[in-house]
Amino acid sequence: MSDSPIAHPKAGAGEFTPSQRSRVKRLNQRAAYDKATVYGVLDQGLICHVAYVIEDQPHITPTAYWREGDRVLWHGSSASRMLRTVKEKVPVSLNVSFFDGLVLARSGFHHSINYRSVTLFGRAEALTGEAEKLAALEAFTERVIPGRWPELRAPTSQEIKATTVVWMEIEEASAKIRTGPPADDEEDYALPIWAGVVPLGTVIGEPIPDPRLDAAIAPPAYLKDFRFG
Amino acid sequence: MSDSPIAHPKAGAGEFTPSQRSRVKRLNQRAAYDKATVYGVLDQGLICHVAYVIEDQPHITPTAYWREGDRVLWHGSSASRMLRTVKEKVPVSLNVSFFDGLVLARSGFHHSINYRSVTLFGRAEALTGEAEKLAALEAFTERVIPGRWPELRAPTSQEIKATTVVWMEIEEASAKIRTGPPADDEEDYALPIWAGVVPLGTVIGEPIPDPRLDAAIAPPAYLKDFRFG
Repeated sequence: MSDSPIAHPKAGAGEFTPSQRSRVKRLNQRAAYDKATVYGVLDQGLICHVAYVIEDQPHITPTAYWREGDRVLWHGSSASRMLRTVKEKVPVSLNVSFFDGLVLARSGFHHSINYRSVTLFGRAEALTGEAEKLAALEAFTERVIPGRWPELRAPTSQEIKATTVVWMEIEEASAKIRTGPPADDEEDYALPIWAGVVPLGTVIGEPIPDPRLDAAIAPPAYLKDFRFG
Repeated sequence: MSDSPIAHPKAGAGEFTPSQRSRVKRLNQRAAYDKATVYGVLDQGLICHVAYVIEDQPHITPTAYWREGDRVLWHGSSASRMLRTVKEKVPVSLNVSFFDGLVLARSGFHHSINYRSVTLFGRAEALTGEAEKLAALEAFTERVIPGRWPELRAPTSQEIKATTVVWMEIEEASAKIRTGPPADDEEDYALPIWAGVVPLGTVIGEPIPDPRLDAAIAPPAYLKDFRFG
């Protein structure tokens, strides 16, 4: 079980070494390759986009993910075309992005977006043992909604069999982050044009009970701990 | 200029015909291929993820986009590796997704996410003439923030030259949408476990003026029209 991402120790400090494929080309003052920055963005997210190739055609699938040490994991139906493709250790790219604001400059050219974006490169493979898959699904659930897993009806062997969990060692990673006000041409600052940032963020609403839920069952306290973005 | 997406008429009703690459395989009761649904999702978004291939390696880049008729457009620095790659009419896939809620079921297996996701397939190419690029950039700005373009310092020829605008005819498209409460196994509804949906959404904050902005310049009224998600 040395390959188990579940038993994988927390990744320490360190830096990814960008190659041609992962080095940020444009506006590279916004780029970072250190694990603290990359994992800082990854650990705030829930949904990524996975890119993979089938017969020269790029495909892209949004999916939930989580991180364990230097690995990311994601899961889904064993019938998923995305999972059936990526688990074969083919090249994969994975992006997690947050959009934090519209940046309104005095010229169209300097309009921008404030964002935090991480792109990973690697090859994924499937977890195999039932115990390993079960532990991964528990870790995922507890990462998203700490406290929920112990309350749930336990998974059946059939459900675990119908679920594919893949893990990917992060071979290369880059973060690209823009923050702050617009960066206008110096002579444009005198123009009488409003400039600044319109903030964007994620809002988490009040839980909506299932219409079939017994009204005596209150929303659990752990829902208040759910964070995103 | 018959290729101009700017002069392109609004797309009417219709349906995309899914092929092997675009047909939704899993949970296909959530799938739709009609333009009303696909464009309904596209037109609420601002940011997409573009997937493309460089030497067998999938790449993925988040970027702003807009739609004109049956085409989507996006833009950026002419030095962008993504744009230099995709403008050569190579196969591209593009996804726009909104995540509307965490779906908490009585079993881990039936946990899900409420989402609206559209995936497009096509091949992109660059707009060439300066007037055409300028018109596209105006259309984009006015789509995102109606009223802003006329106020801005006009683009210079140099800026337009430094900007690549690509357009892609939508060859194939699919939408995949999940809404509503969890779908538990019938026998699990009796369990004393809270179930329901935790809504997620995008919040637009109060505009933050550029620190270098003249305090006499108030945020323009048109900022109130900005919508997202």
